[in-house]
Amino acid sequence: MNALSQLESLNITLPPVATPAAAYVPFAISGNMIFLSGHIAKQAGAAWVGKLGENMTTEEAKTAARAVGIDLLGTLQAACQSIGKDLNSVKRIVKLMGLVNSTPSYTEQHLVTNGCSELMAQVFAEKGSHARSAFGVAQLPMGACVEIEMIAEI
Amino acid sequence: MNALSQLESLNITLPPVATPAAAYVPFAISGNMIFLSGHIAKQAGAAWVGKLGENMTTEEAKTAARAVGIDLLGTLQAACQSIGKDLNSVKRIVKLMGLVNSTPSYTEQHLVTNGCSELMAQVFAEKGSHARSAFGVAQLPMGACVEIEMIAEI
Amino acid sequence: MNALSQLESLNITLPPVATPAAAYVPFAISGNMIFLSGHIAKQAGAAWVGKLGENMTTEEAKTAARAVGIDLLGTLQAACQSIGKDLNSVKRIVKLMGLVNSTPSYTEQHLVTNGCSELMAQVFAEKGSHARSAFGVAQLPMGACVEIEMIAEI
Repeated sequence: MNALSQLESLNITLPPVATPAAAYVPFAISGNMIFLSGHIAKQAGAAWVGKLGENMTTEEAKTAARAVGIDLLGTLQAACQSIGKDLNSVKRIVKLMGLVNSTPSYTEQHLVTNGCSELMAQVFAEKGSHARSAFGVAQLPMGACVEIEMIAEI
Repeated sequence: MNALSQLESLNITLPPVATPAAAYVPFAISGNMIFLSGHIAKQAGAAWVGKLGENMTTEEAKTAARAVGIDLLGTLQAACQSIGKDLNSVKRIVKLMGLVNSTPSYTEQHLVTNGCSELMAQVFAEKGSHARSAFGVAQLPMGACVEIEMIAEI
Repeated sequence: MNALSQLESLNITLPPVATPAAAYVPFAISGNMIFLSGHIAKQAGAAWVGKLGENMTTEEAKTAARAVGIDLLGTLQAACQSIGKDLNSVKRIVKLMGLVNSTPSYTEQHLVTNGCSELMAQVFAEKGSHARSAFGVAQLPMGACVEIEMIAEI
């Protein structure tokens, strides 16, 4: 399985690493673990605003979660490159945490987060199978509909 | 301290690993760390629905958190078995994250999550003492009252 | 860079480790990783109560997040001392998770969490640059305005 050629066959071009909106960095490497910061969904460079149960459907937010996954892969590639490697060196996607901007009654956070999880399976096959938590948050920075953080092993 | 015999003395039978409701796996092993997915509370095989501050008491949700703990131990046992070990090989319960389905005014998430934390102490004694975060979420997948994720070391 | 002398120049005296409000411990060490429990903001020894978007400003909560950071450093120092080291042995602040008690419309969780992130940069310089997630929760234990958990590497 070659992650980079999988991305090509999916017609995905990795974005450059986004500049964090605050006083932190996009990733931190500790031993063979790469911790990626929570990435919010973006559209045309700005926060992809929305709240599930109020003004956005599960399908729309699943698309947003897939877009977050592409941004996470851009950051993961940059993290790998910072130590002279690339996405093909990823041994395992270990864990995702999917935060879904939700009203008190919306209960499909797991279906939304699948947008990111399924991308990892497409790109990394078995190496993409990961542990995960998904839940509904009261709000997210800049009103984003979805935020996802990731841990990978190299 | 023998975790398996402790479970027996507590009359706890470990459940089989639940099939995730979405595109992920119940656990991921990286080095000597086992990352367990967020497990939602279940009753009779379905989501244990409830929102604290609205239609469920702290004591009821603490019972639900203990049930999540039993499910987490079932998954942890399966994770250990996948590498030829069992629960007695667990070196340490490292961290829990307790997500409690809460109204904007309910403030006893720590007491709810104790249902799981106290089980870990009963089963693993000192090896069960863990770091933890507990907080109130807007909603959880399928309306569950509690979701807990865990990191263990073998 | 000497973290302890930096603390001195910032006129920060580290607090003793707080007793957890529930059945867990303030930190767990696994290999060279230190996992710190979620610490809630405190004022005069009690929970620093507040909800962003309702009765507290971003600036006030940022001050609370900085106070949490000081408490986290007190716990991290105790964790280091438990293995014969001190804060100067910290190799890296790896990750923060910032939980901000928010109404459904408050969207500046990242600015609040900066109160803790900026402290880490002041105390540890480059070693303080960390991955991070920040989001709005429905409520926190005892009504606290902010809760932050941390992972550090020694």
